[in-house]
Amino acid sequence: MEQYDIVIAGAGPAGLTAGIYAGREGLKAIILEKALKGGMGNVAPLVLNFPGFKSITGLELLKRIGDHASGYMDIKESEEIQKVEKMDGKIMVTTNKNEYAAKSLIISTGTKYRELGVPGEQEFIGKGISYCSICDGMFFRGKEVLVVGGGNSAAEHALHLNDIGCKVKMVHRRDELRAQKYLQDKIKKEGIPIVWNSVVKEIKGDTFLKSVVIYDRVRDVEEELDIAGMFIAVGEIPSSQLAGPIGVEIDRGGYIITDKDQKTNVPHVYAAGDVTGGLKQIIVACAEGAVAAESAYNDIKMEE
Amino acid sequence: MEQYDIVIAGAGPAGLTAGIYAGREGLKAIILEKALKGGMGNVAPLVLNFPGFKSITGLELLKRIGDHASGYMDIKESEEIQKVEKMDGKIMVTTNKNEYAAKSLIISTGTKYRELGVPGEQEFIGKGISYCSICDGMFFRGKEVLVVGGGNSAAEHALHLNDIGCKVKMVHRRDELRAQKYLQDKIKKEGIPIVWNSVVKEIKGDTFLKSVVIYDRVRDVEEELDIAGMFIAVGEIPSSQLAGPIGVEIDRGGYIITDKDQKTNVPHVYAAGDVTGGLKQIIVACAEGAVAAESAYNDIKMEE
Repeated sequence: MEQYDIVIAGAGPAGLTAGIYAGREGLKAIILEKALKGGMGNVAPLVLNFPGFKSITGLELLKRIGDHASGYMDIKESEEIQKVEKMDGKIMVTTNKNEYAAKSLIISTGTKYRELGVPGEQEFIGKGISYCSICDGMFFRGKEVLVVGGGNSAAEHALHLNDIGCKVKMVHRRDELRAQKYLQDKIKKEGIPIVWNSVVKEIKGDTFLKSVVIYDRVRDVEEELDIAGMFIAVGEIPSSQLAGPIGVEIDRGGYIITDKDQKTNVPHVYAAGDVTGGLKQIIVACAEGAVAAESAYNDIKMEE
Repeated sequence: MEQYDIVIAGAGPAGLTAGIYAGREGLKAIILEKALKGGMGNVAPLVLNFPGFKSITGLELLKRIGDHASGYMDIKESEEIQKVEKMDGKIMVTTNKNEYAAKSLIISTGTKYRELGVPGEQEFIGKGISYCSICDGMFFRGKEVLVVGGGNSAAEHALHLNDIGCKVKMVHRRDELRAQKYLQDKIKKEGIPIVWNSVVKEIKGDTFLKSVVIYDRVRDVEEELDIAGMFIAVGEIPSSQLAGPIGVEIDRGGYIITDKDQKTNVPHVYAAGDVTGGLKQIIVACAEGAVAAESAYNDIKMEE
């Protein structure tokens, strides 16, 4: 069985930066990634808010961060963690390919956007469909955009897009929003139209999104809307499955609870990035990864 | 009087990133910097742990982040804040050049390293003298380095430098370390020599640091040590002077206390970067700046 100082679960911005910091501290670390390195940042068409890069595709930015981390340690792709357990003061990690014993574990497994599950959705992600208005809103300035959802995120997306000059419409499957009162008030005040009781049935276009088919569940009618962009905000699912089996606390939304040092309630287990909630931005995930690695380093050194 | 959504105090990594995020939210913001933009990161000879850049000088990295922020707002250099007060729900900021009324204030004024105040110190900063072993330790692998100080930071620097293969010696002005017990034990265990009761009197070299003159205060003798690098860890002073007059809480070390959203105890006042303590790294300061700006944005929007 291979022995490590740190096993890092997930090779998004948080995990990769944790790797850079762990490597530079001289720790023996490894990053295990069930899919490809880069994580959700890979799908951002253009990142304009990562300091130091005025404009860079998500794919290029994460490739740079991934190459940077690769200089310090192995990153195993397509290696999915199937079991994590504590044993004799070590953390045992079993994947589809191998077993590892580690002094510490950093969980940086991110989140998944909840999908609508309708035809055309997969095809137009990054080609008109986005999950992040802070990241991608500017591309649609002056154009028709549709926000799907009725919670805080959907309302915030709609207001943000309206602020920066998009022509925003919302579509929500119920007859009232779930968003907080002040957000609802602002949506009303800004005059953002909402298509009530309606769901997206199909997304159409050619190389880029062009229209969506909306179905009104109450009136039982369909309508096709011409739009340039669509922001889907029907929820996110934190990928915090590793937390439960080793007793790591999660909040009501399923996000892993950490302190400012990215420590969880379980000694030698840290979490960083989107899986901990908060502001979901690449720069924040990177910083949390750095802090998690330094906390792990300090805790290991304290016990040596 | 000029009206702003956000005044950002300090143009280091935290302030600059806050500027990028504030600008992208469409807020009217301005960054006021008493010296030059870039902050303490400017003096890092080579930054190897900012994700996305395998190796970049501090100056070049901060220039890139500064240029990035300049695309979104004005950055006023050589403009020192002399007074901050709350008035009629606004924050009034008076500098040596102008007055500003703002809905919110982000304090990102950083820290200053405490200096030894000896001949040669200014000359060799970045040329053998460093304040950050995580950043610069690797340059001195296999070489003689001296750590000045006796607290936790000094001990951590010494252990870290020892870990990565430097030939470390410490010099401390007292006859015992102030560092925590476990750190002292490890220093002893690792056999890191300590020159007790001694202070640095002079630092010598030509284009690069070559030796230091040490004065033993008890034995009243001087000694000259040949070294390649010197890490000064005699304390840092948070530049948190703006906090007091508007009632922002600081901790015993003078660092501004914030929650995870970078909010201080005073509504509409946020703090980010080294002035809040924690892990003092460029990537962390950037992330805190981003979070502070988003918190300010949300708070402004909630009240509109």
